[in-house]
Amino acid sequence: MGKTTRKLEVVSPVPADIDIANSIEPLHISEIAQDLNLSPQHYDLYGKYKAKVLLSALDEHGGNGDGYYVVVGGITPTPLGEGKSTTTVGLCQALGAFLNKKVVTCLRQPSQGPTFGIKGGAAGGGYSQVIPMDEFNLHMTGDIHAITASNNLLAAAIDTRIFHESSQSDKALFNRLCPPNKEGKRSFNDIMLRRLKKLGISKSVPEELTQEEVKRFARLDIDPESITWRRVMDVNDRFLRKITVGQGHEEKGMVRETGFDISVASEIMAVLALTTSLSDMRERLGKMVIGNSKAGDPITADDLGLGGALTVLMKDAINPTLMQTLEGTPVLVHAGPFANIAHGNSSIVADEIALKLVGPGGFVVTEAGFGADIGTEKFMNIKCRYSGLKPHCAIIVATIRALKMHGGGPAVVAGKPLDRAYVTENVALVEAGCVNLARHISNTKAYGVNVVVALNKFSTDSEAELNAVRSMALSAGAFDAVICTHHAHGGKGAKACENVTQPLKFLYPLDASIKEKIEAIAKSYGASGVEYSEQAEKQIEMYSKQGFSGLPICMAKTQYSFSDNASAKGAPSGFVLPIRDVRGSIGAGFIYPLVGTMSTMPGLPTRPCFYDIDLDTTTGRVIGLS
Amino acid sequence: MGKTTRKLEVVSPVPADIDIANSIEPLHISEIAQDLNLSPQHYDLYGKYKAKVLLSALDEHGGNGDGYYVVVGGITPTPLGEGKSTTTVGLCQALGAFLNKKVVTCLRQPSQGPTFGIKGGAAGGGYSQVIPMDEFNLHMTGDIHAITASNNLLAAAIDTRIFHESSQSDKALFNRLCPPNKEGKRSFNDIMLRRLKKLGISKSVPEELTQEEVKRFARLDIDPESITWRRVMDVNDRFLRKITVGQGHEEKGMVRETGFDISVASEIMAVLALTTSLSDMRERLGKMVIGNSKAGDPITADDLGLGGALTVLMKDAINPTLMQTLEGTPVLVHAGPFANIAHGNSSIVADEIALKLVGPGGFVVTEAGFGADIGTEKFMNIKCRYSGLKPHCAIIVATIRALKMHGGGPAVVAGKPLDRAYVTENVALVEAGCVNLARHISNTKAYGVNVVVALNKFSTDSEAELNAVRSMALSAGAFDAVICTHHAHGGKGAKACENVTQPLKFLYPLDASIKEKIEAIAKSYGASGVEYSEQAEKQIEMYSKQGFSGLPICMAKTQYSFSDNASAKGAPSGFVLPIRDVRGSIGAGFIYPLVGTMSTMPGLPTRPCFYDIDLDTTTGRVIGLS
Repeated sequence: MGKTTRKLEVVSPVPADIDIANSIEPLHISEIAQDLNLSPQHYDLYGKYKAKVLLSALDEHGGNGDGYYVVVGGITPTPLGEGKSTTTVGLCQALGAFLNKKVVTCLRQPSQGPTFGIKGGAAGGGYSQVIPMDEFNLHMTGDIHAITASNNLLAAAIDTRIFHESSQSDKALFNRLCPPNKEGKRSFNDIMLRRLKKLGISKSVPEELTQEEVKRFARLDIDPESITWRRVMDVNDRFLRKITVGQGHEEKGMVRETGFDISVASEIMAVLALTTSLSDMRERLGKMVIGNSKAGDPITADDLGLGGALTVLMKDAINPTLMQTLEGTPVLVHAGPFANIAHGNSSIVADEIALKLVGPGGFVVTEAGFGADIGTEKFMNIKCRYSGLKPHCAIIVATIRALKMHGGGPAVVAGKPLDRAYVTENVALVEAGCVNLARHISNTKAYGVNVVVALNKFSTDSEAELNAVRSMALSAGAFDAVICTHHAHGGKGAKACENVTQPLKFLYPLDASIKEKIEAIAKSYGASGVEYSEQAEKQIEMYSKQGFSGLPICMAKTQYSFSDNASAKGAPSGFVLPIRDVRGSIGAGFIYPLVGTMSTMPGLPTRPCFYDIDLDTTTGRVIGLS
Repeated sequence: MGKTTRKLEVVSPVPADIDIANSIEPLHISEIAQDLNLSPQHYDLYGKYKAKVLLSALDEHGGNGDGYYVVVGGITPTPLGEGKSTTTVGLCQALGAFLNKKVVTCLRQPSQGPTFGIKGGAAGGGYSQVIPMDEFNLHMTGDIHAITASNNLLAAAIDTRIFHESSQSDKALFNRLCPPNKEGKRSFNDIMLRRLKKLGISKSVPEELTQEEVKRFARLDIDPESITWRRVMDVNDRFLRKITVGQGHEEKGMVRETGFDISVASEIMAVLALTTSLSDMRERLGKMVIGNSKAGDPITADDLGLGGALTVLMKDAINPTLMQTLEGTPVLVHAGPFANIAHGNSSIVADEIALKLVGPGGFVVTEAGFGADIGTEKFMNIKCRYSGLKPHCAIIVATIRALKMHGGGPAVVAGKPLDRAYVTENVALVEAGCVNLARHISNTKAYGVNVVVALNKFSTDSEAELNAVRSMALSAGAFDAVICTHHAHGGKGAKACENVTQPLKFLYPLDASIKEKIEAIAKSYGASGVEYSEQAEKQIEMYSKQGFSGLPICMAKTQYSFSDNASAKGAPSGFVLPIRDVRGSIGAGFIYPLVGTMSTMPGLPTRPCFYDIDLDTTTGRVIGLS
């Protein structure tokens, strides 16, 4: 056991999350770092309980072998969530504080929006939490704020560039972009040389450009209708979903319809999650496509002169944040991309650092968003494809509640009391719902990993219901199925990691066509075919023409069903999956087909969580955060 | 001299700012803290070169006497700026590293917008800089990001509240605001009890409210036309100056015209700068007025249920950030409100902490925005009024260039070469321009402080020109006038602080009427009278009726002239000052009359600074930041 870990005194009934969190004095984060053999030069403190682990830690520990790599997914959830984060944290506490294994938990950073809206915080729950919970849920070390700042600098640059191009001749634009210095000499800087290279102009002296080349270089000629880059804000602000900008009289009537997404939906969040180094991040940020020129060529952040500046704004955000669980085991919190329009996994660099820090025999447990059909699938086919890492074990979190829903139980609605079916024993309903679990097990096993089912137990679950799931999971091919109560389930998860030697088997090769890749994923959902809208066909053709068809696919689909229909529970099959539109996060590195409409900006209810949140100004302590 | 300070090797000609900054390895900030006798429990590290000094430092050092308090203002500037920050930093280096005095420099945090736009960074220049300059200019410790987040949460709450009120009965609203708990009991929480108190309803049990009281409590009935609260972003995004929100179909046609300001223009920035404690900040944030009800009553953040949550978002931002100068003297960076629509000074808490840390005989040098007519006036009448602190000495920074402009020299335009008049000797032009300096001196002396003129010397200034200014400054009543070259001017400033025993004489008493206060300030500008627009009259009447007339006045006036006319240089008099409109930052604590139009959202030029900014991904070093 690490020197820093401790076992909790468990009280029954379990107190409120905030009361448990407040009952523990967190350790100084330097103690957690020391326990991981991190030298002080490889991390930066952010207050007493958070530290950014620098990428240079890989220089120090890069020679180590990797630990075991465990990904946590789930069955198709109810709208209440099945406690995946709590189970993940609990598993790590069990491995670290109970079984004395080296372990690091890798989690996504939550958006601040929902914290003040309906959902509340995302630090786990009960005796399985990341602390201090207010620092985890708010600001943290500023990564999301850095994303907001860089996303919006790019947005401002787009509209302003169109504005300036509209009133200036090619020559005037060129003269402003490459002004003479004091000696009267003009020059291209690095980012301009990138654009020249992209245009196939192999000249490095401004005066040598022909008139035609001056025009091609200086005029981006962005088609306003083609702009896909939106502004972002880490606030649930529904009135920004669709807006008109440029209505000031100085903007001379250049109005445009656009909108804001919540910050975690920014492509820059996906870049942060998928990047592998500073230089890789520089390239991905520069390659982000914001729309097309009127001639149909993709326009990138580098074309706008911004790839370098965006990297500067993101240079600290690339370092994962070290925090701790209630039992003093280490947690790396890093990145939190959407799980529909993006891939919904925490960062590659956090996992890489963690695997070296725990070393052979240690464990890294990383959580994937939504159900395994989405989070785990994207973990394998997108995240592991870019990182080159291979998991040893995949966990699937299930609850009796969700299985009953899949078995045909009444609808589960957030904010409404649960139907009696969910709080009284009904083994038949549970068994019927196991078709959902079974498909997640077989889909996940197909990647060549061992699958362990973790049953997140509620007080109303009966022994017979739990046993039914366990036996059905084993017959569906699970390596094991364990009932998660505090501390009890670490050992089985650990064993499932041993002797996994198969290579990772992807669902599709990258060199398949966009449609072939979409169809491979659709098949894993149980679909009998795929139907493309006219718009989707057009976009697929455009991306293929632009040379982006070799990217992996990131399906933007509801998390509430294997199919596109959120109310189709269990394991639907034989349906045709409709693709409404196809978009690209070219810098991050994936194409995302839209299966239905995804909301990228939540709203606030009549009585948001913020009503209860306050600061005790005497102690400085946050109250009312849930 | 502190153990940490060092003297620089000065090279001639002076290298570029970034090269000087990069030539110095900053000290670990804990060394700077130790030199100030700050115990580790009273500061939080943010990386190696920044620390947040906690307000608890006042518990440890509060028993100390205060050091000398020096405010730095300037003459009416040219559009190029007269080097006030550089002079401030240089003075402190002279006091600290050269004269071995205890000294803390208090600076404003710069907005990130201009760093990527036209202006570049704001860390001083030459051998007088705050380092690391990239950390000073970008993100710092996240205070401006916290302001953006809290400002925009309030904005989202306003539109969403109007939306929910539009579709719900009084009873439905009330039931949602005070839902029954599991036992079926309803209750008011703290922030609701605040609203009830404001409404004069002295009941604490929801069931006891009459139907009329339910309506008054639950329905804010915000008049959309009256909303003054705008969204903010720390980016130069001119296309957000005027926008229409709510155009999504889910928002059911509730469109509204509004806009974004740059984040530092948020009232929350002014609150941060003027607050004196956590509990004071809680009250100010809750009292911020966002508009009126249809009946004309002011609606506050607390009415929207947000005062507590905003305080939670701002709880770390209230702690000033400790950084260092090139010579290792300490700097506290904190808050950066606009100097026209707000008061343009760094924070009260930073100055208070600094005065205790340097103790008797030590020096705190704090910079005020724009010329002394604006920055110093607001420092005295707003900031010192709220803090209860009194400066011992006021510095007025002048340049030969600006004095020549005031003497009748040709227009100085940013980005255009300087006229010959500014780079060749012309004593008569300088002498003619001293009328501007003389009025700043007499205005500033009237507060009961000694005035020292600091001449920021350029290489083209002649001895005769400098001598002319010195003698005119002395005859205008300055305690001294010194030529600022590196290190030479610390001693004179120090002497001017001794034996200053007069109390601070404000320009107006708070209990004067809004118009009397406006007229007192206008008189100090040289105006013969004040003219109010119909809108201004209406607003003055409204604020007086709402009980806000006892607040100090914050004039939103051009910094380029004593008058409202930016091209009226020198010391204009006899003009009538027009008041176009009158607005309030009620939570921050001032009324701000608008003298002309103020831009609160800058734009980007055709070739913004960001073109040159990049990260050296091998060393991790920022390049191209100016």
